[in-house]
Amino acid sequence: MSGLTRTGVSLERELLEQFDKLITSRGYKNRSEAIRDLIRESLVSEAIDKNKPVVATLSLIYDHHSPNLSDKLNEVQHHSHGNVMAATHVHLDADNCLEVVIMKGRSGEIKHLADHMIAMRGVKHGKLVLTTTGKDFK
Amino acid sequence: MSGLTRTGVSLERELLEQFDKLITSRGYKNRSEAIRDLIRESLVSEAIDKNKPVVATLSLIYDHHSPNLSDKLNEVQHHSHGNVMAATHVHLDADNCLEVVIMKGRSGEIKHLADHMIAMRGVKHGKLVLTTTGKDFK
Amino acid sequence: MSGLTRTGVSLERELLEQFDKLITSRGYKNRSEAIRDLIRESLVSEAIDKNKPVVATLSLIYDHHSPNLSDKLNEVQHHSHGNVMAATHVHLDADNCLEVVIMKGRSGEIKHLADHMIAMRGVKHGKLVLTTTGKDFK
Amino acid sequence: MSGLTRTGVSLERELLEQFDKLITSRGYKNRSEAIRDLIRESLVSEAIDKNKPVVATLSLIYDHHSPNLSDKLNEVQHHSHGNVMAATHVHLDADNCLEVVIMKGRSGEIKHLADHMIAMRGVKHGKLVLTTTGKDFK
Repeated sequence: MSGLTRTGVSLERELLEQFDKLITSRGYKNRSEAIRDLIRESLVSEAIDKNKPVVATLSLIYDHHSPNLSDKLNEVQHHSHGNVMAATHVHLDADNCLEVVIMKGRSGEIKHLADHMIAMRGVKHGKLVLTTTGKDFK
Repeated sequence: MSGLTRTGVSLERELLEQFDKLITSRGYKNRSEAIRDLIRESLVSEAIDKNKPVVATLSLIYDHHSPNLSDKLNEVQHHSHGNVMAATHVHLDADNCLEVVIMKGRSGEIKHLADHMIAMRGVKHGKLVLTTTGKDFK
Repeated sequence: MSGLTRTGVSLERELLEQFDKLITSRGYKNRSEAIRDLIRESLVSEAIDKNKPVVATLSLIYDHHSPNLSDKLNEVQHHSHGNVMAATHVHLDADNCLEVVIMKGRSGEIKHLADHMIAMRGVKHGKLVLTTTGKDFK
Repeated sequence: MSGLTRTGVSLERELLEQFDKLITSRGYKNRSEAIRDLIRESLVSEAIDKNKPVVATLSLIYDHHSPNLSDKLNEVQHHSHGNVMAATHVHLDADNCLEVVIMKGRSGEIKHLADHMIAMRGVKHGKLVLTTTGKDFK
């Protein structure tokens, strides 16, 4: 774990007041934490753009009555060369499932893998989120 | 399950060729499925805008050494008035965890709940994805 | 114009180094300006979500041979109850035009107006961007 | 201009009803046009991802009292190696301007150029939108 340091930001009083109001409404206890989150968010966006290693979650909504769909999803995940780490399955109602597939890898290969699962017949909706491995944020 | 129907789309030959190329590269087996996915995606965006019931996954990256963080996350989730359905925890490395929190509710209240968890000290990055409950897509 | 003030942020040395690298590559001359931009960006997002007054630009790509399209676009803009402030027209090639429509108003009404123009036959692509009126950022 | 063709989509009756409701509220006169827009939108996203030639508009909000800012923006635009095609300037109020910079080029170089202008001191907010040159959509 690296040491802490401190940096100063000069800004308009009014801008700071508006920011304080916004972050309080979002539940932040202090300004430093809110600014750190903005900084980390900009670094994560950059990592995604630059095809760096990321962690990702793919949320898939599907009807579990779709013939062979579970099997096909399973198959793809097992043959993903280590990109898929885990999956959580939630029974939303009698028909619909949510499957959250947790992945790790270069942003490019993760997107490709996700596209493939979203494209499967019976998958009603799919959304991919890319985040950080956390390693760069000591 | 409602019956199937059929609709026709007239479009430029060249546009269709480009679309076919794109969806093949994404793994679609046929054009109908790809167009259905675009249609469902536009309906999900609308549902989110209109504060309708959605299913959501929040991906949180945090250092599990952060004092009390796991407890606080747990606490919030248990007091979420039924919005939180499940959570999956993945050990990324010696320090970093990914926690995927699966939620259900109006898009507004889900966003509020997510903001609150992302704002916690020790959470390095958080990203929320809103998707459909699947119910409207018979 | 309100006075300047100063706030401090404590963060990990390594995080700051990565941020400095990123903002240098984006052309920032100093850290304060980069952090102010992140703060303002979060306030603009909030303003859009909350249906506050915004300034917006709609970029439309269309074929100027489309029958009546220019007239219809003109019509809508003139009947927009003061939401449309200006429009710039660029001749991209022999067929294609870019029209940038500049608007002002509540985010909700602006989105509605933009949807209407994007939906017109002959408009090949349209994208709306919402930004600030600048008034809140003294 | 290439010839028109026709493709069929089979989908659930209920899904189609919801889609019809959505597109009517957005002002579409017919379903074909709405589906063509979804198809073109997916092709534009792909073009941006793949660093293909795009048309772009950058919306900048700034205080025209900022020392030298107009000059610096002008300078950058003139030295952009032909990427900048036009700029529209709107006087929002006594202090604030909107400048819409219209550009053409590979998505990567356009992003870089936009980052540079957004980073300038005095620019309160900047947002870039990438769209199509229209050439591929005959």
